[in-house]
Amino acid sequence: MIDSVSDELRAKVLVDALPYIQNYTNKVIVIKYGGSAMGDDSVKVDVMRDVVLLSLIGIKVVLVHGGGPEINDMLKKVGIQSKFINGLRYTDEPTMEVVQMVLAGKVNKDLVSLLGQCNGKAIGLCGVDGMMIKAEKLQSEQDLGLVGEITSINTEPILDALNNGYIPVIATIGVSEDATMYNINADTAAAKIAAALGAENLILLTDTRGLLRDKDDEETLIPVVNVSEVPKLVKEGIVSGGMIPKVECCVEAVRRGVKRSFIIDGRINHSILIEMLSHEGIGTMFL
Amino acid sequence: MIDSVSDELRAKVLVDALPYIQNYTNKVIVIKYGGSAMGDDSVKVDVMRDVVLLSLIGIKVVLVHGGGPEINDMLKKVGIQSKFINGLRYTDEPTMEVVQMVLAGKVNKDLVSLLGQCNGKAIGLCGVDGMMIKAEKLQSEQDLGLVGEITSINTEPILDALNNGYIPVIATIGVSEDATMYNINADTAAAKIAAALGAENLILLTDTRGLLRDKDDEETLIPVVNVSEVPKLVKEGIVSGGMIPKVECCVEAVRRGVKRSFIIDGRINHSILIEMLSHEGIGTMFL
Amino acid sequence: MIDSVSDELRAKVLVDALPYIQNYTNKVIVIKYGGSAMGDDSVKVDVMRDVVLLSLIGIKVVLVHGGGPEINDMLKKVGIQSKFINGLRYTDEPTMEVVQMVLAGKVNKDLVSLLGQCNGKAIGLCGVDGMMIKAEKLQSEQDLGLVGEITSINTEPILDALNNGYIPVIATIGVSEDATMYNINADTAAAKIAAALGAENLILLTDTRGLLRDKDDEETLIPVVNVSEVPKLVKEGIVSGGMIPKVECCVEAVRRGVKRSFIIDGRINHSILIEMLSHEGIGTMFL
Amino acid sequence: MIDSVSDELRAKVLVDALPYIQNYTNKVIVIKYGGSAMGDDSVKVDVMRDVVLLSLIGIKVVLVHGGGPEINDMLKKVGIQSKFINGLRYTDEPTMEVVQMVLAGKVNKDLVSLLGQCNGKAIGLCGVDGMMIKAEKLQSEQDLGLVGEITSINTEPILDALNNGYIPVIATIGVSEDATMYNINADTAAAKIAAALGAENLILLTDTRGLLRDKDDEETLIPVVNVSEVPKLVKEGIVSGGMIPKVECCVEAVRRGVKRSFIIDGRINHSILIEMLSHEGIGTMFL
Amino acid sequence: MIDSVSDELRAKVLVDALPYIQNYTNKVIVIKYGGSAMGDDSVKVDVMRDVVLLSLIGIKVVLVHGGGPEINDMLKKVGIQSKFINGLRYTDEPTMEVVQMVLAGKVNKDLVSLLGQCNGKAIGLCGVDGMMIKAEKLQSEQDLGLVGEITSINTEPILDALNNGYIPVIATIGVSEDATMYNINADTAAAKIAAALGAENLILLTDTRGLLRDKDDEETLIPVVNVSEVPKLVKEGIVSGGMIPKVECCVEAVRRGVKRSFIIDGRINHSILIEMLSHEGIGTMFL
Amino acid sequence: MIDSVSDELRAKVLVDALPYIQNYTNKVIVIKYGGSAMGDDSVKVDVMRDVVLLSLIGIKVVLVHGGGPEINDMLKKVGIQSKFINGLRYTDEPTMEVVQMVLAGKVNKDLVSLLGQCNGKAIGLCGVDGMMIKAEKLQSEQDLGLVGEITSINTEPILDALNNGYIPVIATIGVSEDATMYNINADTAAAKIAAALGAENLILLTDTRGLLRDKDDEETLIPVVNVSEVPKLVKEGIVSGGMIPKVECCVEAVRRGVKRSFIIDGRINHSILIEMLSHEGIGTMFL
Repeated sequence: MIDSVSDELRAKVLVDALPYIQNYTNKVIVIKYGGSAMGDDSVKVDVMRDVVLLSLIGIKVVLVHGGGPEINDMLKKVGIQSKFINGLRYTDEPTMEVVQMVLAGKVNKDLVSLLGQCNGKAIGLCGVDGMMIKAEKLQSEQDLGLVGEITSINTEPILDALNNGYIPVIATIGVSEDATMYNINADTAAAKIAAALGAENLILLTDTRGLLRDKDDEETLIPVVNVSEVPKLVKEGIVSGGMIPKVECCVEAVRRGVKRSFIIDGRINHSILIEMLSHEGIGTMFL
Repeated sequence: MIDSVSDELRAKVLVDALPYIQNYTNKVIVIKYGGSAMGDDSVKVDVMRDVVLLSLIGIKVVLVHGGGPEINDMLKKVGIQSKFINGLRYTDEPTMEVVQMVLAGKVNKDLVSLLGQCNGKAIGLCGVDGMMIKAEKLQSEQDLGLVGEITSINTEPILDALNNGYIPVIATIGVSEDATMYNINADTAAAKIAAALGAENLILLTDTRGLLRDKDDEETLIPVVNVSEVPKLVKEGIVSGGMIPKVECCVEAVRRGVKRSFIIDGRINHSILIEMLSHEGIGTMFL
Repeated sequence: MIDSVSDELRAKVLVDALPYIQNYTNKVIVIKYGGSAMGDDSVKVDVMRDVVLLSLIGIKVVLVHGGGPEINDMLKKVGIQSKFINGLRYTDEPTMEVVQMVLAGKVNKDLVSLLGQCNGKAIGLCGVDGMMIKAEKLQSEQDLGLVGEITSINTEPILDALNNGYIPVIATIGVSEDATMYNINADTAAAKIAAALGAENLILLTDTRGLLRDKDDEETLIPVVNVSEVPKLVKEGIVSGGMIPKVECCVEAVRRGVKRSFIIDGRINHSILIEMLSHEGIGTMFL
Repeated sequence: MIDSVSDELRAKVLVDALPYIQNYTNKVIVIKYGGSAMGDDSVKVDVMRDVVLLSLIGIKVVLVHGGGPEINDMLKKVGIQSKFINGLRYTDEPTMEVVQMVLAGKVNKDLVSLLGQCNGKAIGLCGVDGMMIKAEKLQSEQDLGLVGEITSINTEPILDALNNGYIPVIATIGVSEDATMYNINADTAAAKIAAALGAENLILLTDTRGLLRDKDDEETLIPVVNVSEVPKLVKEGIVSGGMIPKVECCVEAVRRGVKRSFIIDGRINHSILIEMLSHEGIGTMFL
Repeated sequence: MIDSVSDELRAKVLVDALPYIQNYTNKVIVIKYGGSAMGDDSVKVDVMRDVVLLSLIGIKVVLVHGGGPEINDMLKKVGIQSKFINGLRYTDEPTMEVVQMVLAGKVNKDLVSLLGQCNGKAIGLCGVDGMMIKAEKLQSEQDLGLVGEITSINTEPILDALNNGYIPVIATIGVSEDATMYNINADTAAAKIAAALGAENLILLTDTRGLLRDKDDEETLIPVVNVSEVPKLVKEGIVSGGMIPKVECCVEAVRRGVKRSFIIDGRINHSILIEMLSHEGIGTMFL
Repeated sequence: MIDSVSDELRAKVLVDALPYIQNYTNKVIVIKYGGSAMGDDSVKVDVMRDVVLLSLIGIKVVLVHGGGPEINDMLKKVGIQSKFINGLRYTDEPTMEVVQMVLAGKVNKDLVSLLGQCNGKAIGLCGVDGMMIKAEKLQSEQDLGLVGEITSINTEPILDALNNGYIPVIATIGVSEDATMYNINADTAAAKIAAALGAENLILLTDTRGLLRDKDDEETLIPVVNVSEVPKLVKEGIVSGGMIPKVECCVEAVRRGVKRSFIIDGRINHSILIEMLSHEGIGTMFL
């Protein structure tokens, strides 16, 4: 029974967290949240509470989010058929309009509002604000419409928000020089933002335990991966399917200066806190 | 022919603007833009260019917008019937979801993007960001659903944005203590924000020339109204219909410390510049 | 078994602490530590770890200490007979020399060193530094020698230390205009310092559970006392003996603007954390 | 008829100026004014109004001036015969006293006063203030008395003035280590000051249209000159006479890091504004 | 023999100055220098050295100067007849031009240059710079031409200079709203500037020992005068002639908040240092 | 007779000090004081007065002290036998406790108090504060107990104190990673601190005139020594005995970037002032 936590135990837990808190003070942490990991409202509130706690103890948290399921819902409502090519959503103009509205207007502001409810001081941004995420059309064999590729990150609006004490919550809409909006993959955006900020950590909250040696057995979780081992893991098929782009983001972030990247399970209550403020991680760490 | 503007003339115009520029330096100006005044894209770009110009010459411009027509379009697309009670949109939850998405995700970010294209440095906010617009359910005879009434304005996020050199663009979504989102009238929000900021001017961009003595004759424009004359003008029927709430916003802003309020015609090219940087105003000024 | 604390439990404890952390962020807390509450080294390290934790999560902790037992030890070593009058140490010049050396040179620097070992950034001060504690001879029926009474607190050195990120550790030596050093009661000094700083809390770490209705029964702890009730409690004999001056300090601090004063048990592990970061206090709170 | 400028036209002109304003924001522009270009009082007021306008829209304007005609007038009044050697004024001590008084006491303060009248915030300096222009005797075949040569520019007083929001107005008196005052050519001083400040532009206001291919035909104005072409232009006699030192100043400034130098006609109303804030320049630009 | 000053003596003098230095640190001192007190160059250098010394030890010195004798010389050179009405110079336009040139261009810049030679960091200003001394025509029975009366002091340019570490040297030219320059009495200007700055001291350097009970006997120096005694001293004829306006300035300054005013002898070497940094004053102090 | 110092002479002395003051403004000077040089109270007050004077005229003074005689006294009182090995005090734990108390609690705070009495703003620190002096056990042939060797200096607490306007007074206790306190030679600590701060000067106040060619004849004082000459002076026996470690400190400081080191006589009144603010030094300067 959790309610009977003794005072002594409470104190021990707080004190155990001390070295981790010291380690992260004033460091930037980029957390990617969204997709199927976002789950229902009670989990969402828990994640937001973790984010507020981290921010209160002096960590500069940047929250990057996607919103696939919400986009699908809305597309259905307006009668647009979702179409995927190699796992990427084909994005024509009417689709892009919905993507923009849902990400920047719905998911983003809902998260900001939840953070506010937890007494966090948050601000919602998308790539258009302060021209933060510059993008251009993603070149690919098959035309993907308004799917974009990041050309540069302008960290100024993020740093302004952090310096004024806000938790920046970022919807990954990109914008080109000619003001065309692009649909940007949120994992990739989080990795690029983490790299541009020289973040300490990039944390991808997903709906899996992390990288599993046998993807059907959570007991085979690989706790630590050196980025140099990744090609071998891909070859062996251990990194496969939807895990490939996530691992690539982790690797790219580390290669560009982020100290550590993590793939952890967003469905587990307080997985971020556990990963960051306790001895044992609960997902896979890339370094 | 405009293209043949002589150099001499160009210089004269710029120099004529000098005293107005001096007068407004570092002052806060709140501009309400939206609704039918927003018009087509070319007018919109012109308005944004004016905003950037004002901001460049040292004026702190805050842009507040509504988005009625865009909301109507989107409601139609998702098959929700718009319903108005005494000119206010009955807002049930599905409607509110659309209102939020369209205002904070579509209109807001489109304006920010346009400002960026004009080399303005803008940031899009809504009342949820930094808990800026606190609201509660509007009490009225007939239930209006999630139509809200502002209980307080937290100017901190707006001032942070201005101090960091951004043009804040504000979607008028309000939020209650329990994180319910409310649909807020944009004119009212602009007036309250102007008052809270101690703004120099409040400018309502509308689709009329201003306050007309005879509403069918633009030649009867009343250029200046002292707020103390307003009750008489209402009684005489000169302020009537949709003009009533707009005039009330102008009056309230002046009563709460804004120096001057203006109702001007947003459809006229560069009407803001003309009103602010030249000798003769083109709309109605309340003081 | 504490070691088997589950991750879930850990996270819950941290999250439960969130509202308390939010409440204390950037507030000043004065903790009086010393005397018999100081106990052995392992307890001391625990207290110091709590102080560092509080400081890391954004609370401005000021540590005020006494050192009676250490003074007694040293006086014995140099062959000076301790002499008490009404519970106050008669302090002739040779005694004062020892008091100064032990407090400012031994106890103070040992605590600073312990804080440093816990990765805290601390600085040791006494009332002479920056002329922080101005004092004069305490007037009393029987001459007490160099026992002093505080005439004013100069908060500048404390605020300078806090603003530069240090935990100020203060030995309660006072100094007069003519540079005479005075022996100052540490509880009184802590109360005056808390009042001068406009502190949120004053916490006296003692060797009792708090104020007990029946001083031999810890079960009769009075958790909350309104300062207006104190005279009655004195009259009833519930506040008596060595408790009287401690309670008086708590009352004076609250009267001069400190929000809450606490008498808690320094011998209990992490009693400060439990009192400040959890739902139930463990000592007596005065407000 | 200028007075009938339509509102539409006014707005167009302002908006057309937008990209130029954006381009110059926070940049330093050094304007050399004086000599025969200074003309009568009404032209002077026009130039000052242009300077104030540029300063108001965020450009950091530094005004450097000479004052040959005023010096001649004053020398005449005190009965000193002006004597020129190779176009440079032979400057004995009584002459230098007059030069100093007229430049630093008369022309300088008159310009500051005019700027003040146009609501500009200006401050008059000469090379002695803050030891800004260090100079020594100019070595030449024939002794020129107290004609000086700049040895170094101390930009501190200029930057202090700019950072405090003043338009610095600079009389080109130089001073040696032993406090001897020297008469310094204003064009040269302007070029050196522009280079030392890393200015964006150096603008020499003269009494000619710019560099003319045929000096008697204003239609042969050369709008743009690359500094590498100058030797050829000198050889061809296109740069000749009094134009040689002016062109040399422009070239030197560009060589030392100033982006562009201009020779424009100070007698034309608002020539600075036209050159800086419109599409077509009206003089000769060196880059 | 001064050269044989022993080390011991040197040190004693410096240490004796300590309490005076402590007393004046960061205080503003206005020194009026000029007229017959200015004397020859060697005395001038000595005064400037004193000013630099005071400024180096942390005193904020403002130097205000006149220049009567230099103006007379120049007027003679240009053939203008000086004309005095009740001790005030009748100032027609040609005279004013000379006054401006001599004060702001000659005396002012010579003093700045001398301070620079003593390694002081000085800046020369007149009332036109930053519109510092606002003035209007002095009303008097007989027309005095451009003799002005101060209507307000704008302390901003003086404070900007002090804050940037300069010694401001001020020529007392005033300016009206319509940019007319006025000839302002330097003693009066110094008193008004001292009052506007809330200066600690106003020091008038004159060519007398101070206020003498018998004006022909320096032994009758009155060392201290309470401003309330002045009317009696005037009545008794002890304050008379040219001493009246000087004493009035001292009184006005004290009445408007300056702590102490002094009339001391500028012809005595280092009289400022002696007055300010030693036990015994050498002139008359008003308080 | 000193009391009859004429005003003229006073002023001359102050003015003579001007170039030295200018030279040292904002520079850091480390003064080592202590041991037999510390002498009686009246000399001590004189030295403190000099330190306050230097600090008031803008020099950043850091005072480092030892306290051998006071330690001896205290050890005697507690009945510990002092034991020296090669001139270094064998320091067992009980001895170290006394060393710490006397240095950090007695000598340090007494000096701070004396500085306060002279109206100086001082703060007493030891190597433990802010973990300033990191040390480890000194390795030597014979075990010396807790005699330590500096491994690094953390200048942050010293710079924080200087930037907040305090005179830092430093007791040379070192501390290891495991919180063991070490007894550190004060001369060595002063040299390392001076080097770490990039000080202008290191001044060792001793009880000799400086380096003497014949140690029994003060007339043979060597006023200036180039550090490259030192080995020769050692070989010749001119640097010998207790002078060797002092000279080594001076040499090491210069080698590591301190401009000049001095050995001067602390028993002579105001020797620091004489050395620093006058033409002729009174001890030996190393450069």
